[in-house]
Amino acid sequence: MIVILRPEASQEAIDRLMAQIRGQGVEIHYSRGAQETILGLIGDTTHLDEDQLRASGVVADVRRVSEPYKLVNRRFHPQDTRVMAGGRAIGAGAFAVIAGPCSVESEAQLLEVARAVKRSGATCLRGGAFKPRTSPYSFQGLENEGLDLLREARRITGLPIVTEIMSEAQLDDFADVDIIQVGARNMQNFRLLRALGHSRKPVLLKRGLSATIEELLMSAEYILAGGNDRVILCERGIRTFETMIRNNLDISAVPIIKQRSHLPVIVDPSHAAGIAWMVEPLSRTAIAAGADGLMIEVHNDPLHALCDGAQSLTPAQFDNLMGDVRRRAAFEGRSLS
Amino acid sequence: MIVILRPEASQEAIDRLMAQIRGQGVEIHYSRGAQETILGLIGDTTHLDEDQLRASGVVADVRRVSEPYKLVNRRFHPQDTRVMAGGRAIGAGAFAVIAGPCSVESEAQLLEVARAVKRSGATCLRGGAFKPRTSPYSFQGLENEGLDLLREARRITGLPIVTEIMSEAQLDDFADVDIIQVGARNMQNFRLLRALGHSRKPVLLKRGLSATIEELLMSAEYILAGGNDRVILCERGIRTFETMIRNNLDISAVPIIKQRSHLPVIVDPSHAAGIAWMVEPLSRTAIAAGADGLMIEVHNDPLHALCDGAQSLTPAQFDNLMGDVRRRAAFEGRSLS
Amino acid sequence: MIVILRPEASQEAIDRLMAQIRGQGVEIHYSRGAQETILGLIGDTTHLDEDQLRASGVVADVRRVSEPYKLVNRRFHPQDTRVMAGGRAIGAGAFAVIAGPCSVESEAQLLEVARAVKRSGATCLRGGAFKPRTSPYSFQGLENEGLDLLREARRITGLPIVTEIMSEAQLDDFADVDIIQVGARNMQNFRLLRALGHSRKPVLLKRGLSATIEELLMSAEYILAGGNDRVILCERGIRTFETMIRNNLDISAVPIIKQRSHLPVIVDPSHAAGIAWMVEPLSRTAIAAGADGLMIEVHNDPLHALCDGAQSLTPAQFDNLMGDVRRRAAFEGRSLS
Amino acid sequence: MIVILRPEASQEAIDRLMAQIRGQGVEIHYSRGAQETILGLIGDTTHLDEDQLRASGVVADVRRVSEPYKLVNRRFHPQDTRVMAGGRAIGAGAFAVIAGPCSVESEAQLLEVARAVKRSGATCLRGGAFKPRTSPYSFQGLENEGLDLLREARRITGLPIVTEIMSEAQLDDFADVDIIQVGARNMQNFRLLRALGHSRKPVLLKRGLSATIEELLMSAEYILAGGNDRVILCERGIRTFETMIRNNLDISAVPIIKQRSHLPVIVDPSHAAGIAWMVEPLSRTAIAAGADGLMIEVHNDPLHALCDGAQSLTPAQFDNLMGDVRRRAAFEGRSLS
Repeated sequence: MIVILRPEASQEAIDRLMAQIRGQGVEIHYSRGAQETILGLIGDTTHLDEDQLRASGVVADVRRVSEPYKLVNRRFHPQDTRVMAGGRAIGAGAFAVIAGPCSVESEAQLLEVARAVKRSGATCLRGGAFKPRTSPYSFQGLENEGLDLLREARRITGLPIVTEIMSEAQLDDFADVDIIQVGARNMQNFRLLRALGHSRKPVLLKRGLSATIEELLMSAEYILAGGNDRVILCERGIRTFETMIRNNLDISAVPIIKQRSHLPVIVDPSHAAGIAWMVEPLSRTAIAAGADGLMIEVHNDPLHALCDGAQSLTPAQFDNLMGDVRRRAAFEGRSLS
Repeated sequence: MIVILRPEASQEAIDRLMAQIRGQGVEIHYSRGAQETILGLIGDTTHLDEDQLRASGVVADVRRVSEPYKLVNRRFHPQDTRVMAGGRAIGAGAFAVIAGPCSVESEAQLLEVARAVKRSGATCLRGGAFKPRTSPYSFQGLENEGLDLLREARRITGLPIVTEIMSEAQLDDFADVDIIQVGARNMQNFRLLRALGHSRKPVLLKRGLSATIEELLMSAEYILAGGNDRVILCERGIRTFETMIRNNLDISAVPIIKQRSHLPVIVDPSHAAGIAWMVEPLSRTAIAAGADGLMIEVHNDPLHALCDGAQSLTPAQFDNLMGDVRRRAAFEGRSLS
Repeated sequence: MIVILRPEASQEAIDRLMAQIRGQGVEIHYSRGAQETILGLIGDTTHLDEDQLRASGVVADVRRVSEPYKLVNRRFHPQDTRVMAGGRAIGAGAFAVIAGPCSVESEAQLLEVARAVKRSGATCLRGGAFKPRTSPYSFQGLENEGLDLLREARRITGLPIVTEIMSEAQLDDFADVDIIQVGARNMQNFRLLRALGHSRKPVLLKRGLSATIEELLMSAEYILAGGNDRVILCERGIRTFETMIRNNLDISAVPIIKQRSHLPVIVDPSHAAGIAWMVEPLSRTAIAAGADGLMIEVHNDPLHALCDGAQSLTPAQFDNLMGDVRRRAAFEGRSLS
Repeated sequence: MIVILRPEASQEAIDRLMAQIRGQGVEIHYSRGAQETILGLIGDTTHLDEDQLRASGVVADVRRVSEPYKLVNRRFHPQDTRVMAGGRAIGAGAFAVIAGPCSVESEAQLLEVARAVKRSGATCLRGGAFKPRTSPYSFQGLENEGLDLLREARRITGLPIVTEIMSEAQLDDFADVDIIQVGARNMQNFRLLRALGHSRKPVLLKRGLSATIEELLMSAEYILAGGNDRVILCERGIRTFETMIRNNLDISAVPIIKQRSHLPVIVDPSHAAGIAWMVEPLSRTAIAAGADGLMIEVHNDPLHALCDGAQSLTPAQFDNLMGDVRRRAAFEGRSLS
């Protein structure tokens, strides 16, 4: 960590600051120049608070050199992590395709979609029982009945189920869910993250619409810090100034996360695009970028879907896409499991 | 609502779509031109789902004309709303100054700050007992002990207390809090919003870092839809490309929200700026923009603050600011109460 | 075009507005409902000024339905355009690799790099003679001497040359440049665009750091409106809140532009990434997204490069990349020419 | 400047890098720790190229400590600069109001507006003769005829004129313009900036839509480095994710720029808002933030304006605004001159 001092700082105030820093077990290299004075802090600075340093009257700026995350950091865990869930593998060469409807709407709808995606080669079934909706007047999900239908679809197809949790108060109800999804709007719901850290369940952590990559990794660090290292990260598009697409898929995030962290990373092209025809080109780029999987919305009747119909593929479109996904995953040396 | 049809849409498919729309009780004005065909939907379209329309194969685009929010909409409630909390008024001419430390750290710290801000004329006391922190290794707040200290500070100073809730599971513990704060990261925690809607407690709803103004209003709509209209909105800076400031205070949001909604709007210059010297100029702009109040971090010893020290004013700086705030609020025809 | 009227608009004012619109040769479909009144404008609205309509006291909002660009629009020109430059093809199945140093620094440097990229299979040579630099104290390019060196490198390698123009006043000096590049900062230098429209030279138009896709297409429309349809578009990363990468490659822009326009689109992974190791993964995603080419910075001695050394590949790294590019272009059914 | 080395860097490579840096006249403080090694560069590092350092294989990161701008830096020029133009002062306590139409459309229009804004107390007259328009099909300005009309309006009203230049090739035509405006899209047109640096004319430099404050200051540095210190900066809104307003006025930029630089800063609320009713509240915030002036669009007939009618005030609205501006400028201790 680098601390840059104000040019007008008195020697006395500097000495006080340095004593305070050394009191936290960190060594200091001191460089005084004509225009600026710099403190180089050497050692474990994870617990040092940048704000506290900045609050001292003598500090002009603080720059962190080493990453603030440890357990998710590839530097201390060079091998790729593979997460197992419901008998399926994600990461370290295993490519996952998680498919299903945005929301569970009825037994007939879910089973028809579940059977179709299974037939086409999906490795997990997704479906929302509790839906975070911008408007209080929109369909909010079938709730516990939706969870029951997902269990039934798992029994029939054998596919592990992935569904979104809204609050740590729901953890008991999600006890037999194979992969618990944390949605973009909850990426920094720290009580939920901490509860999931103690749960040992596989977690699919989606990046917030405007979360930096570092913030995503810090949220994953919350889960690992609780003792649960079964975390899959998901890039799903970020909010920018562009209006022609719902969210801008941040494709660079895939290689950057994989360089910084050992955790598997998947891509959700459906939410990034917001429109069905874009799912296929974005899926291609995700595979080429090195993603460990895809999460794709499929609906048997998009026109009457209760949410996100515009971005849902029909079973036939999904089947078509899967042929291409298999060819491309093989080209990249990945296999669907 | 305007529905623009694809040029290649068949008349049969258009007729099917129009029947579906009319089935939802909405009247249609149909315009067919050389290049495009447009459906103008007239009536209450709040419950119509844009995604569902877009999912139909024949729709090129959907544009909403009337706002998706009703209860927070000034159109249906032209007078300014005044929220009463702990005997103090906010909005409709009453200007609030909510001041206190980022986090409650100890009895001595909180009482010293609380007495100081009371003396300087603050109208409410803020202080975090549960702290949302990016890193699991940062101080997370004194939790329930912090709530107790806030109650004590209220007893001594008479100031109503404002503190942040993290989850709907905490509502019982917050039963005697005067104003329950929903933090920026929880602005779209819809379960929490719904629970607050049923609670009848004054709520301070902070805008998310990348939430649009419409999303903020929709989140407030969740609370009002539950039956609770005691909502105060708070602009606290948005995330942009600029790196010289922590968040860009979106000062335009104040007049825009006040034009669209009857709810009071306050500004948090401390979180927007991230640095103490900016709090004063940003406070000036907030008052000039028509805000109904300010929320300001004050700490008796910023250098040793456990969070956000860099942006905290000392009691002396706050006292100085309050003189200016009073003069300016009076200039704008507002009074501190 | 849709014009939404204010609820309180008087019939007299509405009639005046409608007469004004009809006077511009546009037909109106009028829909009056309980809450809102809508005018649907049918016909060629390209010349109608949205601002002028908004300025009328009775208009609440204006929404354009059809695109404001015509000549670049795929709707009126369904086939892919292929641009020929210096005997090489770009677009419509022909994949270009434009490689070379950020700036021309010396004869030895340029020739070494030019020979190397030729050997590895690049189809065009890039190199900056005039450099737009944020700081007036940074190296600004060899200027006309740099242009001469590029001509020499073309003579020796046979590769067409691509170099950046800074002002329409330089057009004569660029008369024998094979592809004239318009940099991101000049994307809306309309005098330059208009001059290039009259020039009939192939133009490589880079997207501005914060330009929308529609703005990029409108800038291309300036060139085509002048009579020059030899335009190649280039996505090079956009400015967002993320700080871990210099610019976020907007990979979605490739399929979106190709859907909207017939012009070829290439990707510049070097500028998006800002760091050499990211060039390879971003190149992979560009090819998968359907780009018609790549623009890559190569330097024989990145450590001593006078600009952008951090993002430049060495000739050996580039040679390695080209093997992969060829395999992947073939996979997508494209061929280097 | 701080250089952070890669943990795996060999001592030999580090020594080579250090020799190279010392060769550029910069002293190094070397700190080797368990996890990282840091070089603190002391001295004038303005000419050091960050990219070049990053390109060396051994550097993990480079952080600049001192600002890259010198001549615009308040650190070396603590007093506020006052720019004189056409007999009027801007900055250092003198508050300017630059008003007039977006574009010069006719003699009658310009003279009517010019007389009106003079009467209401404007200190300078604005009007575009050359207009940068997104669409090639929009009105592009009266060009040289527009310049002539501005000269006539100056003769009649005595107000100095402010108008936008598009290219350094036009400098001769602008020789008698009182303040030459550089538009947001040309903020990084470095050839234009350099030419203005040699011109000694007052320059109004508008911030680009997505330019950082540091980039704005670096563009001003180009002009001062050429020998011209008569530069006025202008904040006019930035591009963000928010869609309810055309651009987000970055009000924080005013105090930040004034802390970093001695140059005067004005605000253009008309372009930020994009809609007339927002001009007044944004003007209030600009004055409160400490701006040295306002730039406001006024049109005698906004409904028929050839550009930006929606954001133009009528003369009556402007007159009303000026009463408020005078009261508020006086409150802040500024005087219109």
